[in-house]
Parts: sequence; C-alpha cells; structure tokens
Amino acid sequence: MDTFELHSKHTGKLSIESIIQIEDKDTLSNIYTPNVGKICMAIKENPELIKKYTIAGKVVAVISDGSAVLGFGNIGPKAGLPVMEGKCVIFKELAGIDAYPLCLAVKSSEEFIQTVKNLALNFAAINLEDIAAPQCFEIEDRLSNELDIPVIHDDQHGTSIVVLAALMGAQHITGKTNLKIIVSGAGAAGTNIVKIINAASNSNMLSISSLKAFDSKGLISKSRVDLTPMKIELANITDQNLIQSIEKGLIDADVFIGVSVAGALTVEMVKSMSTKPIIFALANPEPEIKPEEAILAGAEIVASGRSDYPNQINNALAYPGMFKGLLKANVKKVTMEHKLAVAKALFEYQKPNMSKETLLPSILDRNVPDVIANCILSLTK
Amino acid sequence: MDTFELHSKHTGKLSIESIIQIEDKDTLSNIYTPNVGKICMAIKENPELIKKYTIAGKVVAVISDGSAVLGFGNIGPKAGLPVMEGKCVIFKELAGIDAYPLCLAVKSSEEFIQTVKNLALNFAAINLEDIAAPQCFEIEDRLSNELDIPVIHDDQHGTSIVVLAALMGAQHITGKTNLKIIVSGAGAAGTNIVKIINAASNSNMLSISSLKAFDSKGLISKSRVDLTPMKIELANITDQNLIQSIEKGLIDADVFIGVSVAGALTVEMVKSMSTKPIIFALANPEPEIKPEEAILAGAEIVASGRSDYPNQINNALAYPGMFKGLLKANVKKVTMEHKLAVAKALFEYQKPNMSKETLLPSILDRNVPDVIANCILSLTK
Repeated sequence: MDTFELHSKHTGKLSIESIIQIEDKDTLSNIYTPNVGKICMAIKENPELIKKYTIAGKVVAVISDGSAVLGFGNIGPKAGLPVMEGKCVIFKELAGIDAYPLCLAVKSSEEFIQTVKNLALNFAAINLEDIAAPQCFEIEDRLSNELDIPVIHDDQHGTSIVVLAALMGAQHITGKTNLKIIVSGAGAAGTNIVKIINAASNSNMLSISSLKAFDSKGLISKSRVDLTPMKIELANITDQNLIQSIEKGLIDADVFIGVSVAGALTVEMVKSMSTKPIIFALANPEPEIKPEEAILAGAEIVASGRSDYPNQINNALAYPGMFKGLLKANVKKVTMEHKLAVAKALFEYQKPNMSKETLLPSILDRNVPDVIANCILSLTK
Repeated sequence: MDTFELHSKHTGKLSIESIIQIEDKDTLSNIYTPNVGKICMAIKENPELIKKYTIAGKVVAVISDGSAVLGFGNIGPKAGLPVMEGKCVIFKELAGIDAYPLCLAVKSSEEFIQTVKNLALNFAAINLEDIAAPQCFEIEDRLSNELDIPVIHDDQHGTSIVVLAALMGAQHITGKTNLKIIVSGAGAAGTNIVKIINAASNSNMLSISSLKAFDSKGLISKSRVDLTPMKIELANITDQNLIQSIEKGLIDADVFIGVSVAGALTVEMVKSMSTKPIIFALANPEPEIKPEEAILAGAEIVASGRSDYPNQINNALAYPGMFKGLLKANVKKVTMEHKLAVAKALFEYQKPNMSKETLLPSILDRNVPDVIANCILSLTK
C-alpha cells in the first residue's frame, strides 16, 4: 500500500481498544462508578498497585521533542509524531508491548524533563527518541535518576547495543584480535558506541588495542578547549595520542564505525586501513561510503543503516525485547550490564547462522525479542 | 467478574493495538524509516496534516490531576487513573472513539495548563475530568482559549447537559410552567447547571419564573463579600431577593437540584415545596435525600446519580456522542449553543418513550451517541 494511504486510511497506525465489553449495567459499574472506586482506594492506600490495576503497569511511552528526527534534524514535534507512532507499532507487532507516542512542544531541556515527570506515573517505562545531542544526555540522565521506571534514549543505547553485537560478530567471523577502532561522530549514537565498546573491552567481550573517537573538529582530545562534558568523558576512555585528522587515524586501523555524514569515508581512506577492514557506515539515509564501494576498496565486512544492503544496523533489533525484559524483570534503572548482556545475547543467538553478510538476525525474526527479554530476566535472578 | 480481577487480569482495561501488521520489510519501511519520512515532511510543510496521518486526528485525551475524583475528593493522580481509564473504555464501547487517559502530577493550575499545552498536539480533543473547583474553571477556560482543539471539563458540562435534558423531560411530563428552581451546590457541576438553565430559559427551552443558587454559606448573592469570580457570574444571572437560607428558598419551589452532600434535603423541606415537586438529588454516592423518601414526601419526579434508582443522571449519556460530533464536525471551540443542542437532542430522542421514571434514555442505548453527534453536525452545516 502507498505510504500516504497506509497512514490516512485509519487516521494513523494505532488504535486504542477496550479489553472489556460493556454489555450490562453491572460491567459499567465495575469499570466506572461506583465499583471502580474500590480500585481508586486500593491505589490511594498503596500507590504501587497502579502497576497492577491500570495500564500504567504495561504501557511504554515513546517520547520525543522532534529535535533530531531520522536524518532530518529538528523538524519539530508535530512532524516527528509519525515516527514515534511507527515505533509503537513495532513494539506491539514484534514484542507484544503496548506503547503510546507523545511528542512534546517544549522550549528547553528543563521543560522537557518537567513535562515528562508530570506524566510519568501513567507509564511502565519511557523510550526517549529522536532528541538532539547534547540535550539528550542531560534529559536521559535526569529522568533516569529522578523517576522510578526505566528510561532509555534509544538513539543512544539501542544503536550502540546492535553495533556491539555486529562488531562481536565481525570479530568472530574474521578472527581478528587487538582491533584498532576508529569511531567517527560523537552525537547521541557515536558517544554511546564509544562507551559500550570500551565497556565490552573491559569485560573481555571484544579484543581491542586502540579506540579513537573523532567528531567534526578532529580527535576528541583532552587538549581541546571546546569539549562538552560528555566529550570529556569520551576523551577519558579513548586513545589520546596526537593524531589530529581522521585520515591519519585510519591508517592501519581495523574498524571504521561512522555515525556522521554521507561521503565522510573515501575509497582512499579504506585502502589506507589494515588488510580486509571492517566498515560500519551508519549515516542515514546515505552512508559514509556506499557499501559496494567499500567492498571494492578491500573491506571484508560492511554494515550500514539500510535495509537494502546486508548487515542492517537497526535498533529495532534491540529495543522491543529490551523493554519486554525490563518490564518483566521489574527493573527500575538500566545499567551498562543490561546493555552488554543484550548485545551478547544477540551475538550468541545469531552465531550458528552467522556469515560476513549476516552478522545479525533478521528484524522480522520473532524469536529475537524473547531471546533478549529472557537474557535480562536471567540477569536479575 | 470481581472488580479487582477485572482490573488486574490484563493490567488495566485498555490495550494499544497496531492497525498495521508487519509481515515484510516493505511494510516496515512504510511505517518506519525510510518511508515514514515522507509523512514527516508532509506534516512539516503543512502541520494540519498531523490530523490526517497520525492518531492526533482521532484520539481524545482524558486528563485529570485527581483533585476531585468521584465522591472521594483529592485522592491524587495515581488513585484517579482507574476512573480516567474507565472513561476511555466508555468512549470506545459506546461511541467507537479512541481515548487515552493521562493523570498529571502537578502542583498548580498553571503547571496543569502548561503541561497540557505541551502535549496537546498529540490529541484531537481534550476531556478534562475530576478537577476540583474553582481551579477547574480557570483550567478549562485557558485551555479552551489557548488550544485549537475542543476542550471540555465534563464534570461541568456533561452533567449540566444531562440535567437540562432531564429537566425538560420533567417539565414535559408534569406540564408545569413558570418553574421556581433552587440549585444547591456551586462546584463544577452546580455552577454549570445554573448557567445552562439560565441559557435554556433565554432560549425558551424551559419555562422559568425564578432561579436561585445556594452554596454551603447560603444564597449566592451580590451582597456577599466572599464570592469567587465564578460565583459573581452566578449572582448576575440568578434571583437576588434577600432569602438567605435554602429552607426558606424551598418554600413553594417547584424544582430542587442538589449537587451538594448526602442528607442536605429533608422530608420537611420537600413537604414545604409546591405540590408534586421535582427533585434531582445528585450527590454521589449518597444523594441529598433517598429517592423513596422524596416520593413519600410528595415528590412527583425524582432523579439521582445512582444506577439502582430510576432517572439516573449520568454524564456518560452526553460526552461520548458530544465528542464524536465535535470531531466529525471539526469544531475547534465548544459553545453554549452546542450544549443546549445536545440537551435538546437527548430530550427529543427520549420523548416518545418518556415517563416520570424514564426521563432519559438508557446509558446502554447504542443509538444515543449518534443522535447527539448528528445534532452537532447539523449545527455546523
């Protein structure tokens, strides 16, 4: 069906249904006044019961301000809503989770945070989405600390988890060790790709000899005076030798991970890397280098954000199962341990079917959400 | 089924469903990246298209702060959520309208207003619910003026519309004219009952000789120094002679409408009224006088808020059809004309089946929402 017709036929992609049919006045009395009053009083007595007796126990809110939507940038909350609604469709269809989209017309991080805090009681978890860096870091951090439900900014963590799973797969397939890794781009995704690779290396899930991070101004280095607090964090966990340009950094590197802009990686740069390098060109919708060009230049493995090439890095592989697990395990706060476990579960699940063109399971593999959910459940047992 | 089991079995009473099944990657591309981007860009170009392509074109938000829930008063937003969710069930089951409940943890009217304004873009209309007076007046007024979607505080208008329909029915059945009416209680419902009766009288829908309003301190009179702005409005449209006590006011009155407290109307007070008076004892869950006692004291017609007596005044008779009509007719702001038309439509629909014990249609009569919706549609044609 045409995209426009698909969206207009039923006015959007979701519907809100009643689980209970009203066939007589008794049912009406049970779901509304007077008997619903018993539920109200039970929750007043013990507020935790809101999770047992209302949809606040199961619904994930997908919340954005429309400030960094897909590859479009700041298109505002109204134009962002179709994406959030689509994400809720994926939640339901892939993992059976009820999710509701909300786009906020707010003017500051503080207003975003306050608005979400005012309505968080209605939800079991919060999926922040498509919020620009660096505001997204403070927003996620504050909400995660100040609310007693899980809060995940998926652009940061969903992507980084799937990248780590694919990178573990690439290492497994190629047998390479002591990887020299270059990450290009330090927005929401790039920042957390660096952080999860560092954590995975510390946990012996990856074999790394060097991890360097670049933004549009060059190496993220402590010697720079323009670093945000988050970039100072990155500088503290990455290589700090004085190579300033990404061209020089790529010489003899094993892995390029780009979350930057189309065309940022040239054929010459790929040729300067170690033999048979691993290229993750994740800029959307146009990657840093076309996958076929990277292969021609000698790349052994190429991943991108696109569904029309092998190895699509799609955060929809991670988040439906991740939220399913967090809700089942009643997790209040997501930690690096959860994220590493999800990446490992994705990698282990795919291992028997893995090739250099199938580092990851298919997005339509209906087993994946339960594989991930169960790995989170087993962490908390 | 037991009320608690009914609420816990599926974690609440609503579910969020996907209209679109994801069976292949093409569908995924249509509902999410990359093709959903076309919808985003269309909305960015013309923001009104959010109503065509997303659920913002159909979903009614049912919003409360839990400050005046049922008969319980200020039990807070968490304890209020089961009621809002029940209201959404009624919206869907009776009128086929998608509705979503949100309870807000806010500390002031201003914070309530700002929070709703921040998220209003996601909804086609707003049903405010169970908000304490006098805050509810400012909140509804501001939101109604500052948003471009219909905003109705149902406790004010739903109840008053159904009261007017029942009162027109009582006048029709009894043949009484030049009614002397006493309204007791000037909260959210009482205030608007006075206002709609005054407007109905000006439109010759009711024949009234006197309308007096009382609150817990006596007659709402311009001579008092403690009146809120809303009560000054009431004083301006009601009888101002110097009867101070409701007992004296009731002597020879034809109609008592109570939205106050249990026991506020005694048998002696009913006996002091004109012959065969009309008694609407609407305090919940215990009325101002027990219906059987009012009948014994000589009342010709008795209505209450209860489902176990005849003539239940239930705002669920009005709001599902009213919102259905407002959405269909694309009304941006609700006026007194809409409310009078809905009351008249309810009255005319019931007239062929009307008796002194059936002033109103059954709440389970599935024709009612369309009768009301069509009356609003015909107003705007």
